[in-house]
Amino acid sequence: MLSFECDYTEGAHERILQKLIETNMEQHSGYGSDIYCESAKEKIRKACQCPQAQVFFLTGGTQTNQIVIDSMLKPYEGVAAAQTGHVNVHEAGAIEFTGHKVMELLQHEGKIYAKELEEFLQGFWRDENYEHMVFPGMVYISYPTEYGTLYSEQELRELSSVCKKYSIPLYMDGARLGYGLMSNDTDVTLPMIAKYCDVFYIGGTKVGALCGEAVVFTKNNMPAHFLTIVKQHGALLAKGRLLGIQFDTLFTDNLYFKVSRHAIEMAERLKKGFREKGYSFLLDSPTNQQFIILENKEMEALKEKVRFSYWEKADETHTAVRFATSWATREQDIDELMEILDEMHISDVG
Amino acid sequence: MLSFECDYTEGAHERILQKLIETNMEQHSGYGSDIYCESAKEKIRKACQCPQAQVFFLTGGTQTNQIVIDSMLKPYEGVAAAQTGHVNVHEAGAIEFTGHKVMELLQHEGKIYAKELEEFLQGFWRDENYEHMVFPGMVYISYPTEYGTLYSEQELRELSSVCKKYSIPLYMDGARLGYGLMSNDTDVTLPMIAKYCDVFYIGGTKVGALCGEAVVFTKNNMPAHFLTIVKQHGALLAKGRLLGIQFDTLFTDNLYFKVSRHAIEMAERLKKGFREKGYSFLLDSPTNQQFIILENKEMEALKEKVRFSYWEKADETHTAVRFATSWATREQDIDELMEILDEMHISDVG
Amino acid sequence: MLSFECDYTEGAHERILQKLIETNMEQHSGYGSDIYCESAKEKIRKACQCPQAQVFFLTGGTQTNQIVIDSMLKPYEGVAAAQTGHVNVHEAGAIEFTGHKVMELLQHEGKIYAKELEEFLQGFWRDENYEHMVFPGMVYISYPTEYGTLYSEQELRELSSVCKKYSIPLYMDGARLGYGLMSNDTDVTLPMIAKYCDVFYIGGTKVGALCGEAVVFTKNNMPAHFLTIVKQHGALLAKGRLLGIQFDTLFTDNLYFKVSRHAIEMAERLKKGFREKGYSFLLDSPTNQQFIILENKEMEALKEKVRFSYWEKADETHTAVRFATSWATREQDIDELMEILDEMHISDVG
Amino acid sequence: MLSFECDYTEGAHERILQKLIETNMEQHSGYGSDIYCESAKEKIRKACQCPQAQVFFLTGGTQTNQIVIDSMLKPYEGVAAAQTGHVNVHEAGAIEFTGHKVMELLQHEGKIYAKELEEFLQGFWRDENYEHMVFPGMVYISYPTEYGTLYSEQELRELSSVCKKYSIPLYMDGARLGYGLMSNDTDVTLPMIAKYCDVFYIGGTKVGALCGEAVVFTKNNMPAHFLTIVKQHGALLAKGRLLGIQFDTLFTDNLYFKVSRHAIEMAERLKKGFREKGYSFLLDSPTNQQFIILENKEMEALKEKVRFSYWEKADETHTAVRFATSWATREQDIDELMEILDEMHISDVG
Repeated sequence: MLSFECDYTEGAHERILQKLIETNMEQHSGYGSDIYCESAKEKIRKACQCPQAQVFFLTGGTQTNQIVIDSMLKPYEGVAAAQTGHVNVHEAGAIEFTGHKVMELLQHEGKIYAKELEEFLQGFWRDENYEHMVFPGMVYISYPTEYGTLYSEQELRELSSVCKKYSIPLYMDGARLGYGLMSNDTDVTLPMIAKYCDVFYIGGTKVGALCGEAVVFTKNNMPAHFLTIVKQHGALLAKGRLLGIQFDTLFTDNLYFKVSRHAIEMAERLKKGFREKGYSFLLDSPTNQQFIILENKEMEALKEKVRFSYWEKADETHTAVRFATSWATREQDIDELMEILDEMHISDVG
Repeated sequence: MLSFECDYTEGAHERILQKLIETNMEQHSGYGSDIYCESAKEKIRKACQCPQAQVFFLTGGTQTNQIVIDSMLKPYEGVAAAQTGHVNVHEAGAIEFTGHKVMELLQHEGKIYAKELEEFLQGFWRDENYEHMVFPGMVYISYPTEYGTLYSEQELRELSSVCKKYSIPLYMDGARLGYGLMSNDTDVTLPMIAKYCDVFYIGGTKVGALCGEAVVFTKNNMPAHFLTIVKQHGALLAKGRLLGIQFDTLFTDNLYFKVSRHAIEMAERLKKGFREKGYSFLLDSPTNQQFIILENKEMEALKEKVRFSYWEKADETHTAVRFATSWATREQDIDELMEILDEMHISDVG
Repeated sequence: MLSFECDYTEGAHERILQKLIETNMEQHSGYGSDIYCESAKEKIRKACQCPQAQVFFLTGGTQTNQIVIDSMLKPYEGVAAAQTGHVNVHEAGAIEFTGHKVMELLQHEGKIYAKELEEFLQGFWRDENYEHMVFPGMVYISYPTEYGTLYSEQELRELSSVCKKYSIPLYMDGARLGYGLMSNDTDVTLPMIAKYCDVFYIGGTKVGALCGEAVVFTKNNMPAHFLTIVKQHGALLAKGRLLGIQFDTLFTDNLYFKVSRHAIEMAERLKKGFREKGYSFLLDSPTNQQFIILENKEMEALKEKVRFSYWEKADETHTAVRFATSWATREQDIDELMEILDEMHISDVG
Repeated sequence: MLSFECDYTEGAHERILQKLIETNMEQHSGYGSDIYCESAKEKIRKACQCPQAQVFFLTGGTQTNQIVIDSMLKPYEGVAAAQTGHVNVHEAGAIEFTGHKVMELLQHEGKIYAKELEEFLQGFWRDENYEHMVFPGMVYISYPTEYGTLYSEQELRELSSVCKKYSIPLYMDGARLGYGLMSNDTDVTLPMIAKYCDVFYIGGTKVGALCGEAVVFTKNNMPAHFLTIVKQHGALLAKGRLLGIQFDTLFTDNLYFKVSRHAIEMAERLKKGFREKGYSFLLDSPTNQQFIILENKEMEALKEKVRFSYWEKADETHTAVRFATSWATREQDIDELMEILDEMHISDVG
């Protein structure tokens, strides 16, 4: 059945598979010390315009969040995040598992505001009892957010400025980074992210790779003995080449950005289709996740013909659902979806 | 440079890559709920002759050890293991990271003895102060061990019997399971392992896969909500198909056993070669890891021409080194190694 | 300087000190195995009308919350609590330190509502993605709350009923339990608490003891090997007699309730005094903590003459502050406070 | 029944109780900010001849070990200790609970040798795979050891020197510190300990206090926000005065040393008595713990009349048992013990 359930339903971009085959019988030493990891790191440094960047490849998003946050926080510190942040909601407590509190900030379509962040930090340090409380030691944001929305450069600059003022790092979860950077509605570039964030990751799993996320420490601030820390967390891949080859391919000939742009075009086509048919949206997402409001009966009927995700209840008779496009979505998939919608309307009218 | 450094220097068996390509654009839901994971599980259950087995795919060995041990122990329990056990030495403290002590048992060429295990457990329960001590809650063994040695069926039965007597699970780390099962010197089969062990894993990373280990719970004893526990440990792969497809392929047409057998044949050839040239061995390993004693100067000279691993100091002038074969080792690699050795001797004599 | 800063500014009730002296040179074995611990436990069981209750003495409140919550939760579970709950705000992340998330519920003057709790639990189990989320495994309430307010029997019954429905324990933090039970405005008794809660603790530190809290497991549900768990958390007192003697004394001749009642009478006197002088209150607290609204300049002036706690900003020109009475507050302390207030007014008018 | 079971069978030295009574109704702020804590810290700094020392009071020994070790280690580091070290054997895994491995060193009557420590550290850093292993981040010793033995100044100097060479702190567990310093057979003083150790604690629980241990950081190296870390571990006592008053008393008029000396004199008397009656010893302990070899039947008979601790099996027919004296042991207790032994011999002969 046609699926827009999420952006990781297919395998990997064909060039990645091709490269895996080409290099398969080469002998390389393990744990990320191979030439493909080195090459991929160098390409990422260039794409970030950040020559001093330290890059480390991990396997998945929750794993990456857990390790980055745990290794950069002091033991008595927590990480501030939007209530809706992935680390706060959908990681099964992976952050708390390592001993750290996720400190909830108000969210605005998935984003946090610099002003509210500053009030929170100010409030902490002014509190007479702060020594009995969890210290805010990092700020977590996602780009795009869990709601598909994007921070502007101005917003990133402000968040970065607040973090600097309170001497805590700004961390960006870029599980879908490409889909943010290639949006029609962003003024943010990869070098800007490298500039404003102290650490971030470039998501591979959702953007064309079989698995893999590239963590980028931008301020010469990779924790000492990071490889050992990764090993201790059970996350050090023996055949590091698997990650190196994928990112080396994604950052050759701008492939990462091209496949991301493709997903955005598919999302725009999908959005336009829904809009023209009169559907309304939970919010205006400029990225690959689109949140459509469906009447409940229609949702049930549609479920029979195409896969998508439940998002949240809109009102008693309506539900917000998510359609995700990806690097793998084909134009004909969108067309097929539109035909399904048309058929449902006809039978409805009939 | 020719390398016998370890058994994970190449990518994956070609049939695995082929299958990844064939299935690449199929849409599957995530987190191990795809048809390939299901199919692989069923094949593994059959190979184990254990219809009730619960199988879960993870990405790497340390990760697997960490999650299996942490999820099966009670919080106040530790895991008993040989001093030389991987969990005790080479996992950067991944077990302690989750709050559990590794309780050291004497090792005999990497193995533990049932008698000594029983004395240890008896000693604990007889100690007046046992309530102030870590409770032994699991026994960890590796097969093959870190020294390439193997437990016999008799030894497994005895260990299993002691564990049953003290009501604690027996866990086998099978990172190189195939290389044990296909050894010339074993009377152990996969169904026996499923019978004697409460939980074990079938290593993929070192036996032909890009990554992946298959955990098998044999006594209907998979911890409740294991998927959530895996997620909490940062180890749940979004594209579970990557693991499912690999194990489905490895357990089709006995591929796992065939490639393992190949590595053993290569190891026997290598062992024979060294022996015929008069080298001695640290111990008699019947599996894919061979531990050769080299005179130190010879070791340095050899290092220039072929890669192998330092193992341990033998005496003031000699060192034990490790040569590992694998599913990917070619006959010509062994031949080439032998030629290098011959040349060194000639030049030595010269 | 006269202090109403908190309810732990003095040492211990004189009868406790007397008993420590009387028993001082008796030889007792350690870790809570002495006769005073036994006697105190029996008296607590009787006071709770709960013959099967299992009682364990710990040293402080945060320690108690940490150990009870960590030992009763499964590793993948979190504890639901009011946003303002002590475990969520003022324990420096002691709960997260043990790997568990504190799941925030809306608070209403420090309390949670059964209806909202049920919606939260229902929402969790209905969520398609619940396997990727922290499981709610316990409900934490405080009695009195951090705002000095009290649950009624009806409210406890409802909370207990929701917890039963979802098969999770209800845990009551009774750091100031006596001050709740002896309030003029409660219909709750100790046996009711033992009936509705699966586990709770009777606070000693704030109610006349030098240190010490008595954890009561009411449903034959003390975690196995609890003493070992306590030891593992670094919380097992060698001279357990110190805790046993204190609780034995507090539960002899109703001392615990008498000293609690005294604190309430002092609080009522204080409340009346403030009210008659025209002050307003942040909320109507029926227990030993009173939250008064002071004009900021007055607050600064008052600070020079008496100690109290900052609580929260009321508006631009006013602040809510806390005055706490305790078992040790003397009538003359209240009188003196009132005189200070009167003098300030006179000088103000003057 | 007469008891030599351990050194914490009585309450506290009478001067401590007296001081608790005298100060009882004084109002002091909590968490160690009172004047008695300040005064005690100053007296300890003087006794250590270490003006820059940072002192913090905790409640018990395991708690202290856990917090000191966890707060001074980096997350990927472990603590090296004798196999027989308290942290390795009798703390129910409290160190591992915080994520750190205890790395076993050979023990020699409870002590470790500087030479073997250096070999261990050297071995770690020379290992090609050290990045996959737990980093040694601290050395733990106990003084007196668990076997009652003592390091000489020379030995402490050497251990300190090795630690400095490898840039890791030397930590001394001084649960029975006074009993070491007041031994007839030591050349070590408190200022020497402050000089050679980076951190140590002065045990109160076993040396005259109801509870309490004074941690001393000697090199201006107390971890930042230590109070918050203590709170996070559930170990911050609300009424810090309880600890301050006790240590203030113990360090007034050399009380700590006087009561310690008394215990040594009692131990010498006990040792002499056993020796004269022809008993042999497991080892020659110069401190308050004496390890006597008893014939098993005699041990059973003696158990009926006096309490002592089982230590370890000596041979098939003999057992090593421990008799501990303390600040509270009276001459007449020793005399009574000797009479019991005499009677047993008479009845034996009879």
